Amino acid sequence: MPRPELLTRARLLAGPEVGSAVVDALARATGRPVEHGGSAGDGPYAYVGASLPEALRGDGLLWFHSVNAGTDALLGAGPWPRGALLTRTVGRMGERIAQYVLAWVLAECQSVPEFAAQHARAEWRRIPSELAAGQTAVVHGTGRIGSAVAGLLRSCGIRTVGVARTPREVPPGFDDMVAVDEPVAARWVVSALPLTGATAGYFGADRFAAMGGASFVNVGRGATVDLVALEAALHAGTVGRAVLDVLPDEPAPPGAPCWRLPRTVITSHSAGLTADDDVVTDFSACLRELTAGRIPALAVDPARGY
Amino acid sequence: MPRPELLTRARLLAGPEVGSAVVDALARATGRPVEHGGSAGDGPYAYVGASLPEALRGDGLLWFHSVNAGTDALLGAGPWPRGALLTRTVGRMGERIAQYVLAWVLAECQSVPEFAAQHARAEWRRIPSELAAGQTAVVHGTGRIGSAVAGLLRSCGIRTVGVARTPREVPPGFDDMVAVDEPVAARWVVSALPLTGATAGYFGADRFAAMGGASFVNVGRGATVDLVALEAALHAGTVGRAVLDVLPDEPAPPGAPCWRLPRTVITSHSAGLTADDDVVTDFSACLRELTAGRIPALAVDPARGY
Repeated sequence: MPRPELLTRARLLAGPEVGSAVVDALARATGRPVEHGGSAGDGPYAYVGASLPEALRGDGLLWFHSVNAGTDALLGAGPWPRGALLTRTVGRMGERIAQYVLAWVLAECQSVPEFAAQHARAEWRRIPSELAAGQTAVVHGTGRIGSAVAGLLRSCGIRTVGVARTPREVPPGFDDMVAVDEPVAARWVVSALPLTGATAGYFGADRFAAMGGASFVNVGRGATVDLVALEAALHAGTVGRAVLDVLPDEPAPPGAPCWRLPRTVITSHSAGLTADDDVVTDFSACLRELTAGRIPALAVDPARGY
Repeated sequence: MPRPELLTRARLLAGPEVGSAVVDALARATGRPVEHGGSAGDGPYAYVGASLPEALRGDGLLWFHSVNAGTDALLGAGPWPRGALLTRTVGRMGERIAQYVLAWVLAECQSVPEFAAQHARAEWRRIPSELAAGQTAVVHGTGRIGSAVAGLLRSCGIRTVGVARTPREVPPGFDDMVAVDEPVAARWVVSALPLTGATAGYFGADRFAAMGGASFVNVGRGATVDLVALEAALHAGTVGRAVLDVLPDEPAPPGAPCWRLPRTVITSHSAGLTADDDVVTDFSACLRELTAGRIPALAVDPARGY
C-alpha cells in the first residue's frame, strides 16, 4: 500500500480512454491537477484507467485505479508491477446487476418477450404466469455482487443458496450456503463469479448436466462458461434457458454460433455498466482511505484476481 | 350474512364453468356433496361460479363464491339478490400481480424486449440499464392488490406513493399517500383500481396529461381507462409507455386499434389468473369464517363493488 506521504506528492494521471468529464470531475474531487493521457515521466504517480500502458509499468506506479469492476483483462496483460496497489470501480454495480438478474428472472416468469411478440402480432392469448416466490436460486459467487443479487431475489420470496469453495458463514442476502457441487434443486442458477485460474471453464459439461432444467444466468465472466457444453445442455434440457450478459469472446460477431443457442438471450455485457459518477465516487473513496492509512475496500489482490 | 345453522343444511352447487377437478377438490375440502352445474331446485344453497344463472337469483341463494377476484361483470349483470353473501377468490393474486408489475417495470429498465429483439438479429450492442431504485411509482388503488404491488416495488428501492379519494393512514407497502390529483413526479403510474361507478373512465385526458412522461401500467380494470385519451397521451409523450393487462373490451380482436398504440404492450388479462387451488383454498377459508359466525375477509359489498 502506498505510504500517504508518497501519495501526497504523486502525480495523478488518467488514461486516454477516460472521458474529459471524468477527468474534470476527478480534478474537482481531489483538488489536484489530473494529467489526461499522461505519459510516464517522473514518478511517483497514481493512474486512473482501463488498461495499464507498458511505459507505466515501472517503479513509479504507486496505485492503479481501474474504471471497471472486472480486472481480469488488466491482470492478464502482464505481471502486475510489484508493490503497486490496484483498486477498482464498483459503483452501484451490485444494485445494477441485481436488478438485471431479477428483471430476467421475472421476465421469464411473466413471459415478457413472448407477450411483446404476441402484441406485435396483435394476438390476444392468455399466458399463465409463474410465481417466482417460493422457488430456489443458486448463486455462484458470494461476494459483493452475488450478495446483492441474492438479497434482491430474496425480497421477491425466492430462496437463495450460495455456493462457496470453502465452508463459510452465510453472507448477507443468502438463506443458505452449500459446498461446490453439493446438489440443490434450483429453478435458477446465477453466476457472479470473477475470472481467475480457478474459475476458467468452471461451468462445463458436468455442472450443466447437474442443473436439472434450471435457467442459467451469467453476470460474472464469459470465460467461466464452456459454451459448447452449454449448447449441449440446452439441447438436452438440463439447462432450461440461458441469459448471458458475458461471453468468452466479446463482442460476438453476427455469425458467431452463440446467437443460435436455443432459448438463450445475450445482452452484450450491459448488466453492470459503470457510470462516470461511479468512477469519481469510488476513486475518491479509495483516496480517502489511503490518506487515512487504510487499505481501500475496493482494493484487488493481483494474485487472486479479485 | 347467512346464519351458520342455515349454511349447515344448504346445498352446495358449482356452476358448469367450474372444472371437475375444482368440484372434486371442493367436495373433499368441505366433506359435502357438490352438485356440478346444479339447477335451482329447493333452497337454501351456496353457489360457486363465475356468473349467477337467472334461475338462481331467488331467495334460496345464501352465498355466492366467485371463482374470480373481479366481481364487476357479476354485479353488472343485474341487481344482486337481497341478503345473499358475495365472496371472491383472491388466492395469491396480490403476489402474482405484484410480480407482474415488477417484471414490466424492470423489463423497461433493463430493455428486456429490446435485448430479445437484438438477440434475434444476432446484434451485439450495449444498452445501458436504468436503476429502478430511487425512482417513484404512484399506485392508484391501495387495497390488497395495490398494497402488494407497492410492497414489492419498494423492496427494489422504488419509492411508492398511494392515491386515495379520502385521506387515510399509509397502508402497508407504501411510503406515502396523496389525494387524488395531487401532483407527484413519478416514473411509473400503476393502476390497481376496481371498476365501480366512481372509477369508470377514471384515467382520462386530464389525468394522462398530468403524468409527465411516466409509464402507465394497468392491472386493475380496462374500463377505468379512456383508450382514446391514452392514445393521445402516448403520442404527446405525457405517457412514456403503457403496459395494459386489461382493456375495456376483451378479448381484443386482431383489428382493434389498441394493438397499434405506440410504445404499448397488451398482456391479455393474464396478470392475476387464479389457479384451481386458489378457488378451493379461498372458498374453504370463507366457509370456516362463516361457520365461526364471522364475516369472511373475502366478502364483497355488492353496493360498493369491492
